[in-house]
Amino acid sequence: MKNFYMQLALNEAWKYQFLTYPNPAVGCVILDKNEKILSIKAHEKAGCNHAELNAISEAFKKLKPEISLPKEANALHEFICKNHQGIFKDSIAFVTLEPCSHQGKTPPCAKLFSELKFKKVFISVKDENKIASNGALYLKKQGIEVEFGILEEEGKKLLKPFLKWQKEQFKLFKLALSMNGSPYGKIVSNELSRTYAHQIRSAIDLLVIGGETIRADRPILDARLCKGKAPNICIKTHKNLEEFDKNIPLFKVPNRKIYTHIPEEAKFIMYEGGENFLKNFKDEIDMFLIFQSSNLNNKENIKIPLNLTPLFKANLGEDSYGIYEF
Amino acid sequence: MKNFYMQLALNEAWKYQFLTYPNPAVGCVILDKNEKILSIKAHEKAGCNHAELNAISEAFKKLKPEISLPKEANALHEFICKNHQGIFKDSIAFVTLEPCSHQGKTPPCAKLFSELKFKKVFISVKDENKIASNGALYLKKQGIEVEFGILEEEGKKLLKPFLKWQKEQFKLFKLALSMNGSPYGKIVSNELSRTYAHQIRSAIDLLVIGGETIRADRPILDARLCKGKAPNICIKTHKNLEEFDKNIPLFKVPNRKIYTHIPEEAKFIMYEGGENFLKNFKDEIDMFLIFQSSNLNNKENIKIPLNLTPLFKANLGEDSYGIYEF
Repeated sequence: MKNFYMQLALNEAWKYQFLTYPNPAVGCVILDKNEKILSIKAHEKAGCNHAELNAISEAFKKLKPEISLPKEANALHEFICKNHQGIFKDSIAFVTLEPCSHQGKTPPCAKLFSELKFKKVFISVKDENKIASNGALYLKKQGIEVEFGILEEEGKKLLKPFLKWQKEQFKLFKLALSMNGSPYGKIVSNELSRTYAHQIRSAIDLLVIGGETIRADRPILDARLCKGKAPNICIKTHKNLEEFDKNIPLFKVPNRKIYTHIPEEAKFIMYEGGENFLKNFKDEIDMFLIFQSSNLNNKENIKIPLNLTPLFKANLGEDSYGIYEF
Repeated sequence: MKNFYMQLALNEAWKYQFLTYPNPAVGCVILDKNEKILSIKAHEKAGCNHAELNAISEAFKKLKPEISLPKEANALHEFICKNHQGIFKDSIAFVTLEPCSHQGKTPPCAKLFSELKFKKVFISVKDENKIASNGALYLKKQGIEVEFGILEEEGKKLLKPFLKWQKEQFKLFKLALSMNGSPYGKIVSNELSRTYAHQIRSAIDLLVIGGETIRADRPILDARLCKGKAPNICIKTHKNLEEFDKNIPLFKVPNRKIYTHIPEEAKFIMYEGGENFLKNFKDEIDMFLIFQSSNLNNKENIKIPLNLTPLFKANLGEDSYGIYEF
């Protein structure tokens, strides 16, 4: 069952893939000493709780529903350490990435497992980050069993975007298709899919878009579906920016920077477009996020030979989506 | 967590959807008295163990790995009842369909839960079948708690093919597409997808195919990938059967019946074809099974307006597939 529980942690983490930028996506499952599942949680957003703290506080709420927990990570960590009354003794954790051992914006997760007297921590992938790593060593020193390498290949897939944006630029191409492969029509994907795309827009450094799309669709390119921050834009165009109609809504978003090149400091970049944009830029893309509806229509499909390798696939309502590499 | 465990049972059952014909697809999850997951199993094929017996024998193997179990359902049922030594006392079961209370090819599952002193059985959907039903009533009389209606809507979706083929004809259309919606090319879906399709071929009463496809592809239309029984065929054609080249492999399959109409006694019928076949027959189809690869190509797509409602979606290796209603 080790793989089963780790897969639950991985799936939960994938739900927040890209949204944790610049942090890695991480998932955590907690079992009690009898191996009953207590919680399945993930790191959801940079600056928010790590997956481990989220999972432990969720489990705490289940075991002690009468106690209300503080919200802020440091206070939450401290509160749980003081008030756990031994309820996590001999518990078991599955974490997709080695727990951190350093005090960052949030306290070290390895310390939390040890304070709560966990029996064993299963880890998919070792953390190679010099500052945060050595959580496993800390755990072992505290007498907690550690087992590495559970679904390690899967764990490494989950980390791929993080490993890329950490050292250079990570480029994601977003595409929405009907089931018969057509990107045409005003709205192709459903609201859940578009909300996820807007959440990504509010996490990225830069949205890259074609001049053609801007003139045809006159978009706003914000993150309204998740009430998030509208991204800065790079317009790929042969024209001068001055030639665009400044009444197109995207130009009216306050505090938005608009580029015609990709600034070096942008580390997480999303491309949005259709067939031509994909043809022009596919070779510089790291990953593809493809939403696909459950509808067929009588429109033309995208025609481009592209053998993709799925890293993860899931459903958002009646839509499917996949995250793919070349 | 009730919904979580029932979803596991449902997902497991869906893996064998269509393959259990003429029986319903059913899944079962067993938890021990401390709510640790012991097993997740399904009914896999008519004449084989019910989901409940499969799940209980899987759990038995986990708890008593030193004891080897008999294979045949009646012997297995009897052996477990005699040798359980109380290991299932206060266990919990999640079953997608009310356990049967009658002796069919296999012994009544309700009796098994009661002999093993289960504490509680969660059920998604009540069994309306007059012969097999009343399992819940039996369980309650034996002092076992029963709770109905867990993910009932999902449970009803799982039963839809069964409810249709039980009283009239159930027609499934199988389609394989590239990610950009093209059905063209010799092999579109991967071996796992094609094996599932062959398993269905070996379960159905009749495979319906177009005369055009037969002349163009010269197929054999057997179930070689699962070493299963080649289905009987109905050829939809305006020509006489005599006009086909009898060297086309499908005509050489021994003991195969070939029709040009659908015989009334065929209850589970699969249509296989492309765009024209889909256009001609979509209105008489109950469900669509659509495989989709992770590859895009430069071929034409299928063009037909069709808003489908997914009942279930999953992956087979790098392919996705969905089971849809109109």
